[in-house]
Amino acid sequence: MRAEILAFGTELLMGETLDTNSAHIAARLPALGIDLHTVTIMGDEMGEMVEMLHRCMERSDLIICTGGLGPTKDDLTREAIAETFGETITFDPDLIAAMEQNFRNRGQDMPETNKKQAGVIPSVTVLANPRGTAPGWWAEKGGKIIIAMPGVPGEMVLMWDQQAAPKLKERAQGTVIMSRTFKTIGLGEAAVGEYVSSLFGRDNPYLGIYARPDGIHLRIIARAADQGEAIALIEPMEAEIREALDFAIWGVDGETPEERVGALLSDRGLTLAAMESCTGGLLASTVTDVPGASGYFKGSLVTYATKVKSIAGVEPALIEEHGVVSAEVAGAMAKAVREALDADVGIGITGVAGPGPQDGIPAGTVYAGVAMDGAVESTVMRFPPDRPLVKRRAVVMALLQVYRMLLERNG
Amino acid sequence: MRAEILAFGTELLMGETLDTNSAHIAARLPALGIDLHTVTIMGDEMGEMVEMLHRCMERSDLIICTGGLGPTKDDLTREAIAETFGETITFDPDLIAAMEQNFRNRGQDMPETNKKQAGVIPSVTVLANPRGTAPGWWAEKGGKIIIAMPGVPGEMVLMWDQQAAPKLKERAQGTVIMSRTFKTIGLGEAAVGEYVSSLFGRDNPYLGIYARPDGIHLRIIARAADQGEAIALIEPMEAEIREALDFAIWGVDGETPEERVGALLSDRGLTLAAMESCTGGLLASTVTDVPGASGYFKGSLVTYATKVKSIAGVEPALIEEHGVVSAEVAGAMAKAVREALDADVGIGITGVAGPGPQDGIPAGTVYAGVAMDGAVESTVMRFPPDRPLVKRRAVVMALLQVYRMLLERNG
Repeated sequence: MRAEILAFGTELLMGETLDTNSAHIAARLPALGIDLHTVTIMGDEMGEMVEMLHRCMERSDLIICTGGLGPTKDDLTREAIAETFGETITFDPDLIAAMEQNFRNRGQDMPETNKKQAGVIPSVTVLANPRGTAPGWWAEKGGKIIIAMPGVPGEMVLMWDQQAAPKLKERAQGTVIMSRTFKTIGLGEAAVGEYVSSLFGRDNPYLGIYARPDGIHLRIIARAADQGEAIALIEPMEAEIREALDFAIWGVDGETPEERVGALLSDRGLTLAAMESCTGGLLASTVTDVPGASGYFKGSLVTYATKVKSIAGVEPALIEEHGVVSAEVAGAMAKAVREALDADVGIGITGVAGPGPQDGIPAGTVYAGVAMDGAVESTVMRFPPDRPLVKRRAVVMALLQVYRMLLERNG
Repeated sequence: MRAEILAFGTELLMGETLDTNSAHIAARLPALGIDLHTVTIMGDEMGEMVEMLHRCMERSDLIICTGGLGPTKDDLTREAIAETFGETITFDPDLIAAMEQNFRNRGQDMPETNKKQAGVIPSVTVLANPRGTAPGWWAEKGGKIIIAMPGVPGEMVLMWDQQAAPKLKERAQGTVIMSRTFKTIGLGEAAVGEYVSSLFGRDNPYLGIYARPDGIHLRIIARAADQGEAIALIEPMEAEIREALDFAIWGVDGETPEERVGALLSDRGLTLAAMESCTGGLLASTVTDVPGASGYFKGSLVTYATKVKSIAGVEPALIEEHGVVSAEVAGAMAKAVREALDADVGIGITGVAGPGPQDGIPAGTVYAGVAMDGAVESTVMRFPPDRPLVKRRAVVMALLQVYRMLLERNG
């Protein structure tokens, strides 16, 4: 099935809003066996919208539209699809009643203008919008499908994931492409490659290897007639990868270091605390992005001023001797915060976030110390001197250092 | 001048990479008087690229391409433009020499494959790429301009800002659209509107009012023959807005609360410290995203576990009496951290980030306390119960509360 995406909205053409909807949909089409050909962003101009829809109908089987379903007269997606299909919009009384009920549930009366959003044509099946007022359209005629969803990302994602994608899964009959990614830590690209060298060079499933900020990734890509067959291709290769490299794999697909560390701490009933300098609280903020973090995270001391490190339990003499950006101070920070906050695992991070050097140490130099079980390990990292990037990467590497040390202790 | 953007790249169609380049360019075209018509994302398929370029040449004066300038055989943008213009690619020896020098500067030999990137056609003026190996193209023929830039955002942005945009500024002769946004805090939408009511309803410059997460925004939009005239239209209205509302305006255009608070603290020689619970370090991380924050930011105590708040100087009896999520505890946290870290201004944040409620308090409830100069003020905020959103908005509101209190104290 050949598809294209049309994102309608003048605000997208003004560059004020990033079109994240198209990327969300695009990332999910390969697993449905749907081949995405083009993404087009255009304004809300009726004549151009109809012309574009006609051209899309000539070359594609599926047209996925986002935006232009609001209640104002600038919202023209319904009208453009109706004209393209040569049908007339009528208003569905059941849909109006449901929309009015939605408004009442929020203690409001539905404005008259919102009735426009209850418009339908004979070729349309309505897609419900549990988060907003604009219902979606599944319009189908002469073997062509046009899906129209709201432009608000929260509404679009839910409607796509729960309604449009499952309906497409029943229909789509192309080659399904599925992938699974294994994220490793502690080994270089060459070493990871050696452990699984016998798996490279196959066509289907294909194995790729990629160096990423959070370690070396292995990615299996399988092509098959349906998702079940694709999974059946992936699983034996996955078993071989796990057998060779399980000790180094910290996550699969979208898993994050903070989720994996959190799960491991929860499993073992351990707690975590941190003392952060150059990451400025980003480690704590990242750890607490995971729901349930309060079960294992005690807190972090963001000791941005050097003097505050001493208040927090790091010996001034140690800072004097080794400098504040040093492996020794990172380790001492990890030990001090572990004791001060009565945690099982302590993390200490000190470095130069940039943009400029500090005390002769180049921007991008970061030391991370981890203290647990009487052991303290410090590592040094060097990143490109870009302030937000240094902070992000240092957090990832510090969390993966915790993960590795926890694994080594079996638990 | 009528323009469109073509973003080439299979990785964009896979949804793995977000097309931020097009939004960067789109946001900068109105000030150049260039009217953006369509953004198209498509794969690197030679026939389709040439067909698309021909169609664009029929309907637009300017075609801005990104991606497809790499050294591999999948990179076809140069070839597609050459075919569209009916010209033959030759290799510029000066360009090859410059590229080789670039590689030598990094201590490397240039791989043979990179020579492909030195290809030019007679209609092309080369745009230098100070950050990468792919030079850009400014191709011009028969009154039509095709600009080709690399897909790597860091390289594209620099080439656009420093070379393509200035060249276009000389050429473009359309209506220039410029805007200036004023961000206010402490007043509702109706109140902001009343202060500047006489300025609404004009056509050019036009004044719009918008409710945003960081307060009410006023936006002046001016249309004129060139940037100078547009600025001349904006300035008198800006003066009137400043006269009426200067006390409530905290920032202009892209300015952030953390930049403005940082600038105000620096100006007055004051220091800041925080104690954060539900924001989990995000306030500290946001403050330290600003280069130079070490000049005024002492640190933050991320007291995620309730017991840690007591360690950090908040009376257990106060927590017992009012509950940990309360205005009283937020104020006490602000006072305690101000004293503990010897800062001029203390911030305390406590709340329920979600997704679920805590001790009967609904997710999204956040108290922020600010202590300075003997005064302590606490405010309550209620956000939708979305964990990352609650954290982000609470940080913005707490920083703007600091800004407002600092302004009230004149300084």
